[in-house]
Amino acid sequence: MSARGRFVTLEGGEGAGKSTQLKRLAEALRARGLEVVETREPGGSPGAEAIRALLLQGEEDKWTPEAEALLFAAARADHVAKTIKPALARGAWVLSDRFVDSSIAYQGGAGGLGKGAIRALHDFGSRGFLPDRTILLTLPAEAAAARAKARDNGATDRIGARDEAYHATVASTFAGLAEEESERFRIVDASGSIDEVAASTLAAIEDLL
Amino acid sequence: MSARGRFVTLEGGEGAGKSTQLKRLAEALRARGLEVVETREPGGSPGAEAIRALLLQGEEDKWTPEAEALLFAAARADHVAKTIKPALARGAWVLSDRFVDSSIAYQGGAGGLGKGAIRALHDFGSRGFLPDRTILLTLPAEAAAARAKARDNGATDRIGARDEAYHATVASTFAGLAEEESERFRIVDASGSIDEVAASTLAAIEDLL
Ligand SMILES: Nc1ncnc2c1ncn2[C@@H]1O[C@H](COP(=O)(O)OP(=O)(O)OP(=O)(O)O)[C@@H](O)[C@H]1O
Ligand SMILES: Nc1ncnc2c1ncn2[C@@H]1O[C@H](COP(=O)(O)OP(=O)(O)OP(=O)(O)O)[C@@H](O)[C@H]1O
Ligand SMILES: [Mg+2]
Ligand SMILES: [Mg+2]
Repeated sequence: MSARGRFVTLEGGEGAGKSTQLKRLAEALRARGLEVVETREPGGSPGAEAIRALLLQGEEDKWTPEAEALLFAAARADHVAKTIKPALARGAWVLSDRFVDSSIAYQGGAGGLGKGAIRALHDFGSRGFLPDRTILLTLPAEAAAARAKARDNGATDRIGARDEAYHATVASTFAGLAEEESERFRIVDASGSIDEVAASTLAAIEDLL
Repeated sequence: MSARGRFVTLEGGEGAGKSTQLKRLAEALRARGLEVVETREPGGSPGAEAIRALLLQGEEDKWTPEAEALLFAAARADHVAKTIKPALARGAWVLSDRFVDSSIAYQGGAGGLGKGAIRALHDFGSRGFLPDRTILLTLPAEAAAARAKARDNGATDRIGARDEAYHATVASTFAGLAEEESERFRIVDASGSIDEVAASTLAAIEDLL
């Protein structure tokens, strides 16, 4: 029987470099002979990807904030049960592009539902399951917007399209979470080059190896 | 400005006659000149119908019990916000084929999640919004199964296909709810003819007219 793997999440606002760094971290871990599962939220399992399509398509007011939070929690419950826990149980490392902290920052903080309500949904849906390590990639709003825009030619989705104040509250809620749970979180400055940020990210999980 | 309408739900196990009686009650109320909106759960609004498709299709173990309960609560939040409250606000009566009591009886009671957990999700998603009246149609299990089977040629869905013990707990949880909330609930014996049950159902909402 292999040891239980490690569960690492990457968090941060749009364009911070989560998807880029997730690939780099997966490569670095595989180079050390580890099995690595790359996943993302919302989504990461067939059921959760079906919910993702409901969440990200359509008009801004397609869902009430409460319905949106319930859908995220349902998708996460499925993702944890069907993808994350089975992979960890066989000894794989699981890297997820966003997880519950995104729900806390977006729906709880910026969306006004409150951190406690989102945590309660996670307690119910996924028995409060948390990552072994969460990397928070921080980048000034203008730099993040420039990166995301360059990548997407300006295209975005229902949630990315929300205004500046919304995204500023997302950032400050993330910062507060990192402070409250300093054991689990590591803040990585994402303003350097991709190689520089990759090195910092790897250093931030070194103690788990 | 017209008065706020009334919200009436029909509850009971598979094959008890909810859909049949909902149509009859709608006709009776329309004959009195009332605007009536007929709706159902899961579903009843475009977003909730999309969630319904995720809930009722697929294998028995498609969703964990917790994910299933979160999806029902999300669908209900959408149904309340987009269909039920707007209709009541313009003075219409709203009749729903199933509502939160079905989630409490199926996922909470028979599914083992507990009544309190399902109520908490409803408090979060729909601010605990409750019907003005809930008609519980009761029918011995064998009679209900015979009716449902005759109608569907034996076809059923992910939830209808669960075993006898599950459906017995659904029935006893419904009975307990009706006892706890005797102001809101009326129990109607559904074993008579369609006309007899329709007369009892109409009598059970007479005080709201
Ligand atoms: N350190 C970096 N320096 C310059 N550009 C970068 C850096 N990291 C990522 N980028 C580029 O910025 C864009 C956004 O990066 P990425 O898609 O990884 O961000 P993200 O956090 O996953 O964004 P989203 O939340 O929108 O998915 C991409 O085009 C990527 O190539
Ligand atoms: N009082 C009755 N006597 C005899 N048959 C009935 C009676 N009421 C309904 N039926 C028949 O029983 C079948 C089930 O009724 P109905 O579809 O209304 O039940 P339901 O509670 O909506 O079931 P489900 O939960 O499966 O949707 C239908 O074929 C209907 O015509
Ligand atoms: Mg990304
Ligand atoms: Mg029916």
